[in-house]
Amino acid sequence: MSILVVGTVAFDDIETPFGAVERVLGGSATHFSSAASLYAPVNLVSVVGKDFDLASLDYLRGRGVDLRGLEVVDGETFHWSGRYDYDLNVTETRFTKLNVYASFEPKLADGYAESDFVFLANMDPMLQLRVLASVKAPRLSMLDTMNYWIDGMRDELLETIRAVDMVTMNETELRMLSGVSSLHAGARYVLSLGPRALLLKKGEDGAVLFTKNEYFVAPAYPLEDVYDPTGAGDSFAGGFMGYLARTGDFTNDDIRRAVIHGSAVASFQVADFSVGRMRTLTLPEVERRYSEFREFTRFEPRQ
Amino acid sequence: MSILVVGTVAFDDIETPFGAVERVLGGSATHFSSAASLYAPVNLVSVVGKDFDLASLDYLRGRGVDLRGLEVVDGETFHWSGRYDYDLNVTETRFTKLNVYASFEPKLADGYAESDFVFLANMDPMLQLRVLASVKAPRLSMLDTMNYWIDGMRDELLETIRAVDMVTMNETELRMLSGVSSLHAGARYVLSLGPRALLLKKGEDGAVLFTKNEYFVAPAYPLEDVYDPTGAGDSFAGGFMGYLARTGDFTNDDIRRAVIHGSAVASFQVADFSVGRMRTLTLPEVERRYSEFREFTRFEPRQ
Repeated sequence: MSILVVGTVAFDDIETPFGAVERVLGGSATHFSSAASLYAPVNLVSVVGKDFDLASLDYLRGRGVDLRGLEVVDGETFHWSGRYDYDLNVTETRFTKLNVYASFEPKLADGYAESDFVFLANMDPMLQLRVLASVKAPRLSMLDTMNYWIDGMRDELLETIRAVDMVTMNETELRMLSGVSSLHAGARYVLSLGPRALLLKKGEDGAVLFTKNEYFVAPAYPLEDVYDPTGAGDSFAGGFMGYLARTGDFTNDDIRRAVIHGSAVASFQVADFSVGRMRTLTLPEVERRYSEFREFTRFEPRQ
Repeated sequence: MSILVVGTVAFDDIETPFGAVERVLGGSATHFSSAASLYAPVNLVSVVGKDFDLASLDYLRGRGVDLRGLEVVDGETFHWSGRYDYDLNVTETRFTKLNVYASFEPKLADGYAESDFVFLANMDPMLQLRVLASVKAPRLSMLDTMNYWIDGMRDELLETIRAVDMVTMNETELRMLSGVSSLHAGARYVLSLGPRALLLKKGEDGAVLFTKNEYFVAPAYPLEDVYDPTGAGDSFAGGFMGYLARTGDFTNDDIRRAVIHGSAVASFQVADFSVGRMRTLTLPEVERRYSEFREFTRFEPRQ
C-alpha cells in the first residue's frame, strides 16, 4: 500500500550538546519519508525553492519515494533554526523562515489521489483537510499538529481532527487542545471527536497509544546518547504508518507492533544529525531493534 | 523472608493541584513498609517524637510490621512540607524539620540482625552503612539517596554504594553522582562500584532497571490522575523488595517481575494523600494491576 505525505522539505540549523550543523536536509515530509520508505512506497507532496539541491533526496528516490509532488518554485526553501539543551525534550526555536512554504498550495501528482494512507504533517489544518479530501479512498489517515495551530486555528484544527483516523501529538499539545491536565481525559476528548486512535509522543519516554477500549505503552529505545532529536516525531510516524502499510492489516495487535516499529525507526533518526543515519538504514536493522524492544520490555508471570 | 527498613516516620504537609493536607502520616520507612508488608514481614527502624500517634501505624502492625525498632523520644517528629505543581515529577520543599531525626541512632531490636533483606532509605550514608553492617547475612540490600548526600557526603556515599547489592535513585541524582548526562554511562559507573543492579526511578515515566548485562524498561501505571506523588519511590522500592522477599529467588526474570510489582504498588500509593489508599490495599489488588501491566505493554511478533 502507498502512503501520501504532505509536509515540509527544509533546511535546518541545529545545535545540540553534541555539535552544530547548518542548512542540513530536514523537514517533516523528509523525515517521515525517510522512515516510511523502508516499508512501503511513499508519495511526497511539498515545495522547495531554487536554492534546494534535489540530489540530496536521491536516497529517497532510491527507496521508491515518488518526488513528482515536490514543487520547485522561485525563492528560498523553508528554513528552521533551533537548539536543544541536555533535556532533549525541550526545543528552542531560533527562527522559522517559511519562505516558499508561506504560499504553499499542495498539489497531488498523477496517481497520488489513489494513495492508501495519508500522513498530514504539522501544518495549517485547512491545508491538511484539503489534501485529505483530494485523496479518493484513504484507508488510514493521521495528522500531526503543534501549539501554533491549537492556539490560532482551533476550530479549523478540530474540523480536521474529525476527518482523520488517527492523531499524533505530544503531551503539552494534548493538554492545550483538551484543556485538561490528565492525559487520559485529554485522550478521551480527542477520541470523542472521531479518530480511532491517539498516538501520544513522549520523546525520550516513548509513546502511548490510546484507542477507545485500550491503551498501549511503548518505551523509547534506550540510547546511549541522543545526538539530535529533530525529526524524531516524523520518523516515528513514518515507521508507524509504514509498518501498517506494509502489513495491510489494522488490528489492535498490528497497531501495537506499528508503535514499536515507529519507536525503533525513531531511535535511528536521533542517532545522527539530519538524515545522516537514515540514508543507509535498512529494514532488517529496524527489525533487529524491534527484537531488542521485546527483550528489554518482556516480563512473564512466574511459572 | 523478612525485610529490615531504616528511614523516617514523619509528618508531612503536602499541597498538590488536587488539595492540601497537614501533618499527615508520611516518611520513607512508613511508605516502604506500607508496600513491602503486603508481601513479607518487615522490621522497621526509625524514630519519632512524643507528639506522634502510634495508633496511626496500627494498619502496619496488622500486616506483620515489627515496630519494636521504632524509638519514641522526647521532642518533635520529623516534619516535611512540600508542594507539587501539575508537573508531578518536580517537588518543591517548603521546609524539612529533622527534629528528633537529627540525632537519630538507628537501633536494631532483637532478631532484626537476622533480617534477610535490607532497605536503606534516603539518609546519611554513614548511618546506612552502619545499619547494613549490623545485619548478619543480608541476602539482598538496596539503598536510596538524594542530591544532599551526593553533594555533601560523596565519599561516604560511594563507600556505602560499594557495600550494597542494589541502588535506587532518579535521573537527576544519577547524573549528579556519575557526572555524565547519558543514563547508560551513569548506570555503568554505578555498577562499576559493585552493585548488581541500578533501579532508576522516572516518576510518571516508569523505571529502568540496569544490570551488568541487560536492562529492563517498565512504564508507570497510566493513572487518570496522580493525587500525591509523595512516597512513590519508597512504595516502589517496597513492592520491589517485597516481591523478591516473598519469592525468595533473584533471577533476572524475578527481578523484572519485581520491578512491575513495584510500579503496581506505587500506582496505588499516589492515588491518595499520605497512606490513604495503602491502608486498605491487598496483594490480590496489586496482582490484578500486575496483569494489567502485561496487557498494556504486550506486543507480539506477527504470527
